Amino acid sequence: MDFKEKLDRATQRNNSLVCVGLDLDFERIPLFLKESYPKLESLYKFAKSIIDATSDLVCSYKPNIAFYEASGKKGLELLNKIIDYIPDEIPVILDAKRNDIGNTARMYAKAVFDEYRADAVTVNPYLGKDSVQPFLDYADKCTFILCRSSNPSAKDFQDLRVGSKPLYQLVARKIKDWNSNNNCGAVVGATYPEEIGTVRKLVGDEIPLLIPGLGAQRGALSGSVKKGVNKNNELAIFNSSRSILFASADKNFSEVARKATLELRNKINSVRFGND
Amino acid sequence: MDFKEKLDRATQRNNSLVCVGLDLDFERIPLFLKESYPKLESLYKFAKSIIDATSDLVCSYKPNIAFYEASGKKGLELLNKIIDYIPDEIPVILDAKRNDIGNTARMYAKAVFDEYRADAVTVNPYLGKDSVQPFLDYADKCTFILCRSSNPSAKDFQDLRVGSKPLYQLVARKIKDWNSNNNCGAVVGATYPEEIGTVRKLVGDEIPLLIPGLGAQRGALSGSVKKGVNKNNELAIFNSSRSILFASADKNFSEVARKATLELRNKINSVRFGND
Repeated sequence: MDFKEKLDRATQRNNSLVCVGLDLDFERIPLFLKESYPKLESLYKFAKSIIDATSDLVCSYKPNIAFYEASGKKGLELLNKIIDYIPDEIPVILDAKRNDIGNTARMYAKAVFDEYRADAVTVNPYLGKDSVQPFLDYADKCTFILCRSSNPSAKDFQDLRVGSKPLYQLVARKIKDWNSNNNCGAVVGATYPEEIGTVRKLVGDEIPLLIPGLGAQRGALSGSVKKGVNKNNELAIFNSSRSILFASADKNFSEVARKATLELRNKINSVRFGND
Repeated sequence: MDFKEKLDRATQRNNSLVCVGLDLDFERIPLFLKESYPKLESLYKFAKSIIDATSDLVCSYKPNIAFYEASGKKGLELLNKIIDYIPDEIPVILDAKRNDIGNTARMYAKAVFDEYRADAVTVNPYLGKDSVQPFLDYADKCTFILCRSSNPSAKDFQDLRVGSKPLYQLVARKIKDWNSNNNCGAVVGATYPEEIGTVRKLVGDEIPLLIPGLGAQRGALSGSVKKGVNKNNELAIFNSSRSILFASADKNFSEVARKATLELRNKINSVRFGND
């Protein structure tokens, strides 16, 4: 089963476009976990509780590999264990923003898809097509290409005018061109609902959008959902990390995380299904 | 001692602007090593022989982390061992092309500088200043920002005209702006000597240029050296990986690698010192 089919099934089963970002930050997990276990064990227990509490409410999980790399090889062992723990029917997007020239990009693709066994990855477009192709060659995986990011400095380069259009729109056009295996995706931050709409128009209805920033980064929910989904009200993945993971630091943190996920799912669905 | 001082001392001691890229490819190391040892041990022995044969001829080493990630956590253990093995007086540039928004970039910076203990790193500029700042905050380390890459598809975005200038030149200007800690570097492929000259002019004489592509990628040596060095004939780092590492697959591979490194060093120096 390829990524898009797996995503579609999870979306339907859980009636959800929510992705929970598994960006584990030891400083922010509940104190009682930190006090009861060694560091990496406490993070694993935390992640398992979050997954148990949310796996019937999400369309995907998105661990950002930086949070694991920061703890060296033990952190990456933890990433492997967490990806193993995620139920098989929920796709895993490894947020890695990898990029390099072809020969080296092949090594990154091998790491992401063979070593970490992710269903999808995020990559950076700055090096052009031959740097993305080794990822796209994994035809049953999805490669989400960074288009418009959610941070304030995104404007430094992504908004520069090339002719009459900002750079990120030229990236969006290329993403559509590069979709010959039907396995491209695009990343567009929820802090910019208008840009989400522009990217959706440019890439068409077949390409999934990964939209971070609805939570801690305070993107405008309603606009992002309306502009992000395709003509079938699907293929937009709304990621929330901190505002779900760290919704509470008390013993009942996983219940509170579940509640936050459920609320986000329902808010998104009321926009999708016109009850908003 | 900060990166630039360490680089300067190695440059002077070994009279060299050569960087050897430690991009270990199991498929290409000598058969007798592959047959005698388990995979990762054979790679370690290979790397040690290359380092022993070249450490008096180089100004730095540059492992590309992708080649280690592709073997999972054991590969990253190998990377740690190789960085440990490199003599303390030779700076290590970890080619990682990392990038993410601020909160996450901090985690990558921690991984690169604290876990892998690199002296310098390469990063991608597409996300703008706040994504680079967490690396620059390590004031004694150097952050090489991708400006113009050496691959054919570099032109997809890096050459797009923003006003009258190609995008990579705007990146070069930003690199100069971001140099308030005096710890920025720029990456410019040797396949484009004219671009190297333009970038050198834009960034000034204080910023080191990392110039890959002199070897397997067949960049023009003389032009790259003339255009790349600063007014003191320094602060340009010419990386060669495959054409040194895999110069021979015979038992004497490290002697042949030494010879290739020596030739490259001498060719660069004849251009620098005007005997060309």
